[in-house]
Order: sequence, then structure tokens, then C-alpha cells
Amino acid sequence: MRRILVLNGPNLNLLGTREPGFYGLTSLEEIVDELARFAKASDAEITHRQSNHEGELVDAIHDAAGWADGIVINAGAYTHTSIALRDAIAAVGLPTVETHLSNVHAREAFRHRSYLAPVCIGVVAGFGADSYRVALSGLLAHVAGG
Amino acid sequence: MRRILVLNGPNLNLLGTREPGFYGLTSLEEIVDELARFAKASDAEITHRQSNHEGELVDAIHDAAGWADGIVINAGAYTHTSIALRDAIAAVGLPTVETHLSNVHAREAFRHRSYLAPVCIGVVAGFGADSYRVALSGLLAHVAGG
Amino acid sequence: MRRILVLNGPNLNLLGTREPGFYGLTSLEEIVDELARFAKASDAEITHRQSNHEGELVDAIHDAAGWADGIVINAGAYTHTSIALRDAIAAVGLPTVETHLSNVHAREAFRHRSYLAPVCIGVVAGFGADSYRVALSGLLAHVAGG
Amino acid sequence: MRRILVLNGPNLNLLGTREPGFYGLTSLEEIVDELARFAKASDAEITHRQSNHEGELVDAIHDAAGWADGIVINAGAYTHTSIALRDAIAAVGLPTVETHLSNVHAREAFRHRSYLAPVCIGVVAGFGADSYRVALSGLLAHVAGG
Amino acid sequence: MRRILVLNGPNLNLLGTREPGFYGLTSLEEIVDELARFAKASDAEITHRQSNHEGELVDAIHDAAGWADGIVINAGAYTHTSIALRDAIAAVGLPTVETHLSNVHAREAFRHRSYLAPVCIGVVAGFGADSYRVALSGLLAHVAGG
Amino acid sequence: MRRILVLNGPNLNLLGTREPGFYGLTSLEEIVDELARFAKASDAEITHRQSNHEGELVDAIHDAAGWADGIVINAGAYTHTSIALRDAIAAVGLPTVETHLSNVHAREAFRHRSYLAPVCIGVVAGFGADSYRVALSGLLAHVAGG
Amino acid sequence: MRRILVLNGPNLNLLGTREPGFYGLTSLEEIVDELARFAKASDAEITHRQSNHEGELVDAIHDAAGWADGIVINAGAYTHTSIALRDAIAAVGLPTVETHLSNVHAREAFRHRSYLAPVCIGVVAGFGADSYRVALSGLLAHVAGG
Amino acid sequence: MRRILVLNGPNLNLLGTREPGFYGLTSLEEIVDELARFAKASDAEITHRQSNHEGELVDAIHDAAGWADGIVINAGAYTHTSIALRDAIAAVGLPTVETHLSNVHAREAFRHRSYLAPVCIGVVAGFGADSYRVALSGLLAHVAGG
Amino acid sequence: MRRILVLNGPNLNLLGTREPGFYGLTSLEEIVDELARFAKASDAEITHRQSNHEGELVDAIHDAAGWADGIVINAGAYTHTSIALRDAIAAVGLPTVETHLSNVHAREAFRHRSYLAPVCIGVVAGFGADSYRVALSGLLAHVAGG
Amino acid sequence: MRRILVLNGPNLNLLGTREPGFYGLTSLEEIVDELARFAKASDAEITHRQSNHEGELVDAIHDAAGWADGIVINAGAYTHTSIALRDAIAAVGLPTVETHLSNVHAREAFRHRSYLAPVCIGVVAGFGADSYRVALSGLLAHVAGG
Amino acid sequence: MRRILVLNGPNLNLLGTREPGFYGLTSLEEIVDELARFAKASDAEITHRQSNHEGELVDAIHDAAGWADGIVINAGAYTHTSIALRDAIAAVGLPTVETHLSNVHAREAFRHRSYLAPVCIGVVAGFGADSYRVALSGLLAHVAGG
Amino acid sequence: MRRILVLNGPNLNLLGTREPGFYGLTSLEEIVDELARFAKASDAEITHRQSNHEGELVDAIHDAAGWADGIVINAGAYTHTSIALRDAIAAVGLPTVETHLSNVHAREAFRHRSYLAPVCIGVVAGFGADSYRVALSGLLAHVAGG
Repeated sequence: MRRILVLNGPNLNLLGTREPGFYGLTSLEEIVDELARFAKASDAEITHRQSNHEGELVDAIHDAAGWADGIVINAGAYTHTSIALRDAIAAVGLPTVETHLSNVHAREAFRHRSYLAPVCIGVVAGFGADSYRVALSGLLAHVAGG
Repeated sequence: MRRILVLNGPNLNLLGTREPGFYGLTSLEEIVDELARFAKASDAEITHRQSNHEGELVDAIHDAAGWADGIVINAGAYTHTSIALRDAIAAVGLPTVETHLSNVHAREAFRHRSYLAPVCIGVVAGFGADSYRVALSGLLAHVAGG
Repeated sequence: MRRILVLNGPNLNLLGTREPGFYGLTSLEEIVDELARFAKASDAEITHRQSNHEGELVDAIHDAAGWADGIVINAGAYTHTSIALRDAIAAVGLPTVETHLSNVHAREAFRHRSYLAPVCIGVVAGFGADSYRVALSGLLAHVAGG
Repeated sequence: MRRILVLNGPNLNLLGTREPGFYGLTSLEEIVDELARFAKASDAEITHRQSNHEGELVDAIHDAAGWADGIVINAGAYTHTSIALRDAIAAVGLPTVETHLSNVHAREAFRHRSYLAPVCIGVVAGFGADSYRVALSGLLAHVAGG
Repeated sequence: MRRILVLNGPNLNLLGTREPGFYGLTSLEEIVDELARFAKASDAEITHRQSNHEGELVDAIHDAAGWADGIVINAGAYTHTSIALRDAIAAVGLPTVETHLSNVHAREAFRHRSYLAPVCIGVVAGFGADSYRVALSGLLAHVAGG
Repeated sequence: MRRILVLNGPNLNLLGTREPGFYGLTSLEEIVDELARFAKASDAEITHRQSNHEGELVDAIHDAAGWADGIVINAGAYTHTSIALRDAIAAVGLPTVETHLSNVHAREAFRHRSYLAPVCIGVVAGFGADSYRVALSGLLAHVAGG
Repeated sequence: MRRILVLNGPNLNLLGTREPGFYGLTSLEEIVDELARFAKASDAEITHRQSNHEGELVDAIHDAAGWADGIVINAGAYTHTSIALRDAIAAVGLPTVETHLSNVHAREAFRHRSYLAPVCIGVVAGFGADSYRVALSGLLAHVAGG
Repeated sequence: MRRILVLNGPNLNLLGTREPGFYGLTSLEEIVDELARFAKASDAEITHRQSNHEGELVDAIHDAAGWADGIVINAGAYTHTSIALRDAIAAVGLPTVETHLSNVHAREAFRHRSYLAPVCIGVVAGFGADSYRVALSGLLAHVAGG
Repeated sequence: MRRILVLNGPNLNLLGTREPGFYGLTSLEEIVDELARFAKASDAEITHRQSNHEGELVDAIHDAAGWADGIVINAGAYTHTSIALRDAIAAVGLPTVETHLSNVHAREAFRHRSYLAPVCIGVVAGFGADSYRVALSGLLAHVAGG
Repeated sequence: MRRILVLNGPNLNLLGTREPGFYGLTSLEEIVDELARFAKASDAEITHRQSNHEGELVDAIHDAAGWADGIVINAGAYTHTSIALRDAIAAVGLPTVETHLSNVHAREAFRHRSYLAPVCIGVVAGFGADSYRVALSGLLAHVAGG
Repeated sequence: MRRILVLNGPNLNLLGTREPGFYGLTSLEEIVDELARFAKASDAEITHRQSNHEGELVDAIHDAAGWADGIVINAGAYTHTSIALRDAIAAVGLPTVETHLSNVHAREAFRHRSYLAPVCIGVVAGFGADSYRVALSGLLAHVAGG
Repeated sequence: MRRILVLNGPNLNLLGTREPGFYGLTSLEEIVDELARFAKASDAEITHRQSNHEGELVDAIHDAAGWADGIVINAGAYTHTSIALRDAIAAVGLPTVETHLSNVHAREAFRHRSYLAPVCIGVVAGFGADSYRVALSGLLAHVAGG
């Protein structure tokens, strides 16, 4: 059974309660519950962490080096500003998928640059709450083929 | 049953025979065959088109307006240079997913800009031949929820 | 009697059926028919070509060198990406007017650059279907004065 | 009968006497006279203003809000530097056409940016003295269809 | 009693009659009247000038050097284009506050650069008609502490 | 009675003890005390938070969604680097005023860009310790008129 | 006897009274008087104009076309922002020397670009009040050799 | 005997008939005939293709993978815009020389960037019709040494 | 005896276990131990702090103001993104040396910009684990000479 | 009697023999002879050096520190590329005037940037061979007033 | 018999001994010897100069004006930084071919800009030691046809 | 015993006599003498070269390839402009440390780019005369560990 860290960054704790135009009506808890069920059906297990603190996200990635087979990360705003997260992903060397609920390419220009994407195996964006499931399915296929 | 256009752009006809470092060893025909099986299992049907000609890709998108429920497009190099393809996607209004085999963000800078992404519902990149399946699964979920 | 090539680029075949917010409700056929009547009244004759293929547009410009007195071109998206069309216009040396239905300056930044304008005699943009008539009237006056 | 403000900016008072290579041999007075005749034949009436002062051009646009149906403006050099004129056009809300005698896109790079174009309905450039007539005909068609 | 020049630039004479979405429904006269009352209550007196002419605004700043204790300036579009106004403010050396009704940072990119701000003591923007009062209160506190 | 969150970012805890050339001699505690008195006189109540941690500032904004009527934020250096704070402000939807003690436009170029300003109602900068009071007065007027 | 227009732009009327660090202690009147004496000794005659209004400077250049043999212009801030002045100089075709009191290249970056210099015969900057005399001497030599 | 594909892009079919200032008076047919003779003398054989269509050029490169020992390509305008051609050259892996008749570095800035050059073995430009022969001679030496 | 704060930023806790190509095989603990011995031999004493949290690094710098004679900082990724750390260093005014294990100038372009360097006394980079000792030796010489 | 170093950079030894369109017909020797006479009449003495070697120009500036009262330098192409010359001028602290025969602002963009100008007292350009005399006259006035 | 200057810039004296990955194993002496034989066979004669000094290369070009029919120049690193060499080539007016051993377009971005190419008749790059022969053959054809 | 080349570039011969604010009061000779003593104590020997000529510095690096174990280089202004020096360092392959007396990152923006740093093992800047000793100590440690 594969063990996957699902990591959510700043403001994603507000999912379902704020700005549904961008992020939909599903809460983060509901997304994680459904993702856990999907993982189970795919013979995998997810551990979920959310933090608004860049440093805690770095810590979580370091920690994952000891037990996880891969990472699904929606780093939110830190995607575009955090070289520290990039270095953490590169350092632990776990296969990682960058994920976004919204299509970041259709938003402000400063959301088009990702510091993380070049050190991830791939990117999934724009499918709303489904993005996590789509990303996880891609990650599991990658890990299986690795 | 959903009907999906799968559209591949320039040089993708060479898949499996050239540059396996970037694109893997699977041929385009094998990818399409497997994708057709996956679609069938998801109660969908794909029609596949590949062309090295920008104009033919535009024509294919126009044509899809008459029968398709969505598009999975890997426009290859035209992703980064073709406003005509962007305008075609916007004009026909079909939900479209941009797809890439490789992680374009880890390659040359001119591959980081996509003219298509802002008019697509989302992007999937980096899972090799699996990218198509992952993208299709996301598109079908989107269409089902639309 | 002046003979004018009217050349339309990618996606303009969809006029009247898609995105009326940008392009109005008139079909390309209706525009061309009305333009033909206007031309006749001005002692001129138009030949119309539309293609989604950059290469065919280049071919059409080359061909016009043998018979036309001028060109009205709405190159659509290729306006902003095609140096090949620019070189073709410069090579045949026919007086050419760049035309757009919408006011491209009020749209995305990448539509503000035209490769064609510097080798055209002028530009007409923003009058919807009337842009063609306005452009043709300017071209005929130019040719008359040439 | 439509009433149109024709507004000319800095240095256009010198037309016909200076730099005929760029601007032709016709004087501004001759252009305006011919434009008045054309307007009359189109059941319209023009009022002409020329000033080298940015502030007077802003004032003239404000004034037009009380009586005009549209504006044909050749703001000359202020096209490329004046946000004040842009704001004035946006504020009075009259349909406005930006006009140039020369093809500004074939000149220095700093003449390629227009602050006015995004708040105008369209642009006409490159037909020499005919540019005004061509622009006016487009504006009247727009007003008629509005 | 402090004497303050309140200086308004191009198009601000239209306040209350045009584009209420950006500028609100209050006329410039009403704003100035209320500001005068507020000034009086703060033991100050304002003199108001509005002009659409960059040169007249420069003149007004020069003139203020002879009698004023500070300036509240809403230079409108000239904020972003006028080095002459910047030099005038720097030359007379009066404490000056740059003011805007709207939040210029939420508008077009060319409104994000201010030539004036670096030679002002501060900036107040985004409070609609209240911006003047807020700016004046800050200026008076500054002058009192100077 | 209005309840306002006053939020101070990194290094502002050092106010009054360091770099008086930029920030004045008043300590943060003194500023907050005086601001509380001013708020009371305006029938409002402030709650103050200071942190050097970006994540804690995000948390504080989330928390304010439950009880505050508006936010006065001096995000210090995070103003120029934190998209996470911008997203937090946008997500909770409380009227927010960006505030700075110094005139940031007269300092290094990297301090001229604010990620927060476009999602705030306005900006107040340059009045030293008075900036908070000026900002609060503008915010209260805005809330009153909302 | 050569007749030369000496043209001064915005804020130069303040010379000698403000910012002596940049501009010295001599008043504009003293500079002009001394320049007139120097001109006389060189068998030339100067006419001096100063204005804070861009449009008046344009008018003055137009007017000079009727009587002057050359222009010495210190356009102040308009040097860096006015395409209208550039066009005026180009239009009248008089030999013109751009002049500055201070060394503009040692000041802010936006003072390094001159719209006027490319249409002038040359530039003189940095000699304080002597700049005018140095520029005039160069212009007279040029006119003599023309 | 070496077999070389000589590939010409858009507008090169017009050689000898248009713009001799840039391209000389020799027709493409004459160039190819002479190049064939030169090839023969060097114990090589050329196959020539010209197309105005980007897609056909991509197809031709793919086709060459089956029989050619190298490519001499003058992609004309597509040199500066086509990532698809670059990817095709990289994919087939044949040694390729980029060639231009004119010295592209002495023309417009947008002709200074080549998408092809980084995946070619070298570049030859500026020798007019001789460029092809010079390029072929370099390519044959490279192939011989390979 | 001099007291020096040695401050390490994000991901440096992984030293010796990850990416030895960039960072060598020595663990952070070993580096610090050796540095302590070197310090002792130089009549100095170091206190070491490592954190992945930007805010904690800011706090540590503030704290050092009370007891340290200087700082050796390897801020890792925060070097390139943190204005907050820059402001902290400037605020406490302790002589600080920026240090890197790898030669950041030979890595990605975004690692070439340092927000910290302009407020440090100097920079040492590229000597692997020796960088700390080299930096400390330079800092102690500076403090001795201060 | 003032002693002035006149320093000419690369290619200026060719004056009078090459490219008279840019540089006139006078040889460097003739220019220097005439300049010597002019200097004598102004109670000054010039020493002339020309070199195509950047290092020799740096040496010459160093040497001048021992005997000269100022420098007139036409550094030719090194004006735009040599920080070493800039540093040399700044280091010796002699008043220096940058001079050019042609109007560099009317030439290629890369000639618009001067590394020397910011450390010179002023600039004289565009008067052909007279530029030296004009520059020297300005320098002598500066030295006299210093 | 044509006389050609072959000019090599900095570091090319190391050819054959260093970095064979970029520059091959042939020494500069061997290249020049073979080139001399090739020249002789083409009824031409070469004179070779190598220097690491920019000024000596400028001198050599000046000197060639007296005897040479053309120049083959590999300016090495000075290609990308030396406007002085560009001016020298332009000044002497000899037909010149820019040459490189490696394909500079496949190396660092700062090697993509050439100051020399716009004043040369053409460019040859990427053929290793053969580049000189290829360039010379193109130059001789040019000179023959001139 | 290690043998190290210490190489100083333009203007560094003036050390101790000019601009002590940037460079301190110690002369180059004193620095070199002390460095020699330090080297001796570290069982190393230095050879010192200073030149204002870029070509001589290139020559010196070439020469060092025959006898030195490493280079400490302070290339002064050439650090920011010389690709030739970069290529020389890369070509000889000796471990090299870039050194500066002042903290170049706190000076003009054009001093922030180093052409040399990416081919050096590391950088030491900002310790005044001590920079050489610090750099040498790092270099010796590197050589010892190599």
C-alpha cells in the first residue's frame, strides 16, 4: 500500500466557505475525505496536512522523507513565491505533483510562475475539487511505473 | 455516452521512436488504443486526430463543435506559439484540457508560456503517456458536473 | 475596374455563429456579399479567400501578385504571430490594409503587436463588419491616388 | 443630422507645409473643408478644433459631451503620452475613433503604443488626408447602428 | 491658521456627473465645500484650484510657494506622466500629499507608477470623496509636527 | 461600535528603538495606545496583533472574519512579497486599508510593488505614526458608508 | 546677424531661488542677460521664451520657423516626456541644441531618456548656467558651417 | 554518396523576382541547380523541397529521417517563430545547418532570435545565393568527420 | 571574547543527508561543531540557530541585537525572497556576513539576486562547509577593526 | 595656465579618412592642432593622447592625476562598455567632460547608455570637430568657477 | 591573388589544449596552416593575427585597411562585448565574415548577441575547425562577386 | 607548497590613495605584502600581478596554467564586462576565487552581475583589504580538499 502526503498551503482551510467563484463549494474536509476513499480504492493511503505557514510546509516535506512514497501539493500562494518549498521538494527527492483547484493560467500574471513545477514530476490544475483525485491518480501511476 | 476529441499536434506522430528521454517508449498508436479502452470503461468514446499543421488542428477544433462534448489537446510546440488555436478553442466553447507528456516547466523558458491554458478548463502535464488518461478522467468529471 | 483580394485568416469562418460579443452576428458570407456590392458601386471587384492555414494565406498573397491591385487582410490571430505573412506582403509589394472587426487594442496585450502593420499602408480596426468596407474605401482611395 | 467633433492635436496645424514625406501636401484647412463636404453628403456636420495644448484638447472633449454624437481624434504625439486624454474620452462616453495620417506602426517604437485606442471604438491609420474621411465614415456607421 | 492648496488635475471637474463606478456621485464642488468645512474645524483654510492643463498646475504650485503651508494634490492622469509636476513640487519644497479617489493599484498597470509620490510626504488613495479629508488630516498633522 | 483589527507585520515590533530616520521615535505600543484612544473617540474598538511570521498574519486575517468590521494592515516587508496575505484578504472579504509609516515610493524599487493594495479599499503611507490614525479614519468612513 | 530662439521649459523660471544644489544660484534673468551679451559679441541675437506649458513651447517652436536661425532649448522635464516637442522640432527643421544645467545622466533613470536629442544636432549638459553659452557657441559654429 | 535534404521555407519560392535588395537576382531554381552540381562534385546528392506551410516543412523533416544524412534548412520567417520545426529537427537527430541568404543580424530585431540554431550544428548567413553552397560544404565536412 | 550568531535557514537541517552534489557530505551538526572549535581558537564564541520558518529567523536576528557582536547567516532560499530578513538585519545594525555553501552564481538565475547582501558587510559563497569558517574569519577581522 | 588632458579612444585615429557621414572630414591631428590654439587663447594648454586600448586609456587617466586640471574625453565605443574607465575617472577625481563628434542619441540604442556620463561634470555631443572646443570651453569655465 | 586577414581574439591561442568539448583537439597553428593551404588552392593568401587584447585587434583591423581584401574574424568573447571592434570593422569598410568554432546559439544567452554581425557581410558558426575554411570560401566568393 | 596567482584588475593600483570611502587606506603593495606573509604561514606562496589591461589579465591567467595551483582574482570593473576573462578562467581550469574589497551588492546595479562568478569556485566580497586573505584561506582549503 502506497503512502502519500497530501499537503495544502495558505488559505485552503477556507475552502467551501469563501470565494466559491474560484474555489467551489466543497470544504477542504470533504475533499480530503473523498480523496481518502479514492486512495483506499486504489490501494493507497493519504495523510493530510494543511498550514498557512511556509516553514511548517517545509517541515512537513522533510518529515515525509521518512515514510511517504510521494506528495500531492497544493501550495496555494506559496507556489509563486517560495524557493524554500522548491528546495525542500528537491532535497527529499520524493515524486511530487503540483495541484491547483483553479486554472492559475487564467488568473493574474504573477500566478503563472511556479517555483515548484520544475522540481515536480507534473502539474494538474483547473478541475476544482477533482484536481486532487486526478493528481493522485497520476502520481500513483507514476510511482507504480517508477 | 460522452464523445471526446483527442487532438495531438506537431511531432507527436514520432512518439515511441524518438527522444525517449523526454517522451517515453510508447508509440502514439499504443497511447490512443489504451486511452480508447479507458474511455470505454468510463462510458465515453474518443476520436483521435494528429497533425503537424496548425491549420488542420484549427479545422479539427471547428469540426468538433458539431459533435464533441470536450477536447483533450496536446498541441506540442503550438502550445507556445499559436494564438489561432487559442481563438479556435475559445470560439467553439467546448471544455478543453491542455495536456503534455513531459513536465514543460522543467524545460526551456519558451515552453513555460501557454497561449491555450487561459481558455482551457485545466492543465495536466508530466505523467508521460499517462497524462492523456489523467486529463481525460478530469475532463469527464468536469463534463459530468457541468 | 480595380481588383482587390479580401483575405481572411483563422477562425473567421465562424463569424456570426460564435462569440457575438466580440465579432457581431453577421456571417462571413453576408459580410463578403455586402462588401462585393459596395466594391461594385465603387467600380471595383473583390475576390474573397478564407483559410485557417498560415501557408495557404501566404500562397494566396503570392497568387495575388499576378492579378490584384491591392489587399484587404484580416489575418486574425496570425496578425500577431506570423512573420511569414509579413514577408509575403512585403515581397509582392501590393498596397495592403490590415483590418480587424474588434478593437484589438482593447483586448489582451499579445494582440497589440502586429507583424503586418509595418508593411501595410494602414490599419482599420473596431468597426465590426463595417471594418471591411471602411478599409476597402481607404484602399481604393490610396490606389486611385497612387 | 449627426454632429461630430473633429479634434486635431499638436503640430497638425503645420500640415501641408512641413515634412510632406510623412504627412502629404494637403493643408489642415483643405482637409477639414473636404471633410465638411463629405460629412454634409452623409447627413452629418463636423466641428473642427486644433490645439497644441493637451489641456485644451481635454477641455474640447468635455465640451463635446454637451452636443456631439461622436469624435474623430488625431491626437498626434499625445496619442502616445496622454493618459489625461484617455480619461477624458472614457469620461464623456462618446464613440470616438483614433485617426492618424501616417502608418504609426511603421515608425519609431514609441509611436506603437496608444493610450487612447483602448477607450476608442476603433482606429484608422495610414491613408494620409483620406484617414479622416475613412474614420468619419466608420464612426457614422457605428453611430447609426448604435 | 494653516493655509493649504488643494489642487485637482485633469477630468476631475467632471466628478459626480461621469463614471460613478470609479469616482462616486459627489460633485467636485460638493467635495470642496465639505473639505472647506472640515478644514475650518481643524483651524485651517483651503484654496482650491482645478485645471486640465499641466502647465497651469505647475504654475499653481509655484504660486503656492508664496503663501501656502502645504498641498493636497490629486493630479489625476498627470500623476503617471508628469515629471514637470514632480519637479515643481520638489522645487517649492512645500509638504505635499498625493491623493486619489479610486484605488489606483486596482486599475491598469500604467496607473501604478507615480512620478509625484517620491517627492511627496505621503499618499492617500481609495476612500472616494473622503480621500481628500483623510489626506488633509494627515497633512495638517505633519505640518503641526514639522 | 465598530471592531477593527490592526495588524502589524515583520520588524514593526522594533519601532521606536531602531532606524528612527525611517520610522520615527514612537514605539509600537505607544502608537497602538494612541490609536485605541482615537478609535474610542470615533465609537470604534481596535484589536492589535503583531507578528514576524507570515503564516500568523494569515491566521489573524482568517480569525478576523468572525468578528471584525475591517482591517488596518501594515504588512511591512510582506507587502511586497506575500501573495498569501493578498489571498487571505481577498478570501475574508473585509474592507482593508494598507498602511505604511514611511513613504515607500521614495525608497528602493522593490518596495514600490504591493501585492496587497489591489485587494484593499485603499492605501495610506508616509505620515509616520499618524498613518495608522489617518488610515483608521478613512476605514471607518468607508465602513459607515458601506 | 544670426537670430536664435532660447527656449526654457517648466520650472526654469524658479532658477536661482530654489534647489541651488542642482541648479545653482543664478536667476534665469541673469543667465539670459549674460547670454544676450555673449550672443552680441558673437554677432548674434537671442530671443528668450520661458513657459511651464508644453503647448506654449510647441507654439514657440512653430513661431520660430518664421524668423530664427536656430534654437537652444532646455525643455526641463518635458525633455523626458514630450513627443509633441520632438515632433515640433522635427517639423520646423531648425538646427536645435538640447541643453541642461545639471548633468541629467547623474540623476534619476527617467531623466536619462531624451525624446528631443535624436532630432537635435547635439546636446550640452552639466555646466550649470554656462551650459547655455556653451550650447549657443556650438550652435553658432554649426550654423556658420551649415 | 551522401544524401542531403535542402529545405526552403516561406516566400523563398519568390527568389529572384522580388526584393532583390535583400535576396539577389538569382531564382530559387537556379540556386538549386547550381547547388546540385556542387553537391555532385563533392560526391553528394541533394533533394530539394520548398513550402510556405510550416506543417509541410515539419513533415519533410520527419520524412528525411528515413533516407538523409543531413539537412540544409533556410526556414525563412519560420526560423524566428516555429518551435515545431525546432522540435522536428531535434526529434529526427540529423545534422542540420541553418542558412540565410541575407545577414539576418543586420535586419529587424525579431529576426535576431532563431528557434532552430540551438538544435543545429551551425549557422551560415549573409552570402546571398552562395550561402547554400557554403552551408552544404560545412555540413559535408561535418558528416565526413562524424 | 566576541559572540557571534550563526543562523541557518530552510532545508539546511538536511545537510549531509541530501543532494551531496550541491551541499557536500558533512552534516550541519558537524559543521557547527567544527566552527565552534575554530571560533574558540579565535577567541570567539558562536551560538547556532536553524529554522525553516522565515519568522523565526527574523525573531532570532531581533534577539541577537541584545547580545551578539555579529551574525553569519546562510538564509538559504530566503536569501532570494525575504525582504523581511533584510529589514531585520538593517534594523538591528549588527555586522552580518551572507554565506552560502554552493556557488549560487553558478545555479538558477533566481538565486543570483540577494535581498540580504546590500545590508550585509560582505558575502562568502562556494567553499562548501568551509564557507562558514571563511565567513566567520572575515567577520571577526571586521569586528576587530570596527 | 590650466593643463587639460584631451583623451581619444578607439578608432578616432581614423578621423578624416573614414565614414565622413558620421565623423566629418577633419583629421584628428587637425582637430588637436586647432584645439591647442583655442586652448592657448584661453590661457590653457592641452596634452593629447589617443589609444585603441582600454587599459592605456585607464593608465592615461591615472597619469593625469599628477599634473592635469581636467579631462576632455571622447572614449568612443568604450563610452558604452567600459566600467573601468568610469572607475578611473571617479578615482582620480578630476573634472571631466564627455565628448562626442556625432549625436550619439540619434544612432543605435546601445550608444544611448554612457557609463562615463554619471561621473563626468557634463556632456557635449553632436557638433562634429567643434565638439572638442565646445567641451573645452565648458570645462575651463567649470574649473575657473570651481 | 586576394589577401585576407584572419583575426583571432581572446583565448583562441589555447585551441587544442583546453576544453576540447567546445573547441576540438586541433591547435590554432594547425588550423591556420591548413587554412593557408586552402587559401592558396583558391588563389588567395592569408595573414594571421591572434591577440587577447581588444585594442590590438582594433589596431590590426585598422592596419588591414591598407592591404587586405577582406577579413575573417573570430573575435571570441569580444564578439559579445566590443563596440570598438564593431566600429573598427565599419570604419575600414572591408568585407568581413564573423566566425565561431562552436555553435554560439546553443550556449549561454549572453553569447547570442553579436555586436559585430550587423556590420559583417555574414556569419559562419558551428563547424569546429572547419568554420574558418567555410567562412573563407564564402568571403572569397563575395569578394569575387563584389 | 601551494603556488597561487593573485591577480588585480583596473584601478586597483590606486588603492590607498583614492576613494578611501570605498576602498580603505591600505595601498596595494601593503595588501600584497601582508598576503604574502599570510600565505607563507599557510605553507603557500603567492605571485602578484596587476594590470589595467584586460588582455594582460587574460595573458596572466593563461600563463598561470603552467605553474599555479589556483587563482585569487579581483578583476575590478572587468568583473562586470569581461567575457574574455571568464573564458580564460574556464579554459585553464584552475580553481579560482572572485574577490572584491567593497560589497559590490550595495553599489550600482551594473556591479551586481559578474561574468566570472559562475566559472569560479566561490566569491568573497566586502571585507576591505581582508577580502584577499579570506579568499586565499578559502581557496587553500578547497585545493587541499580537491
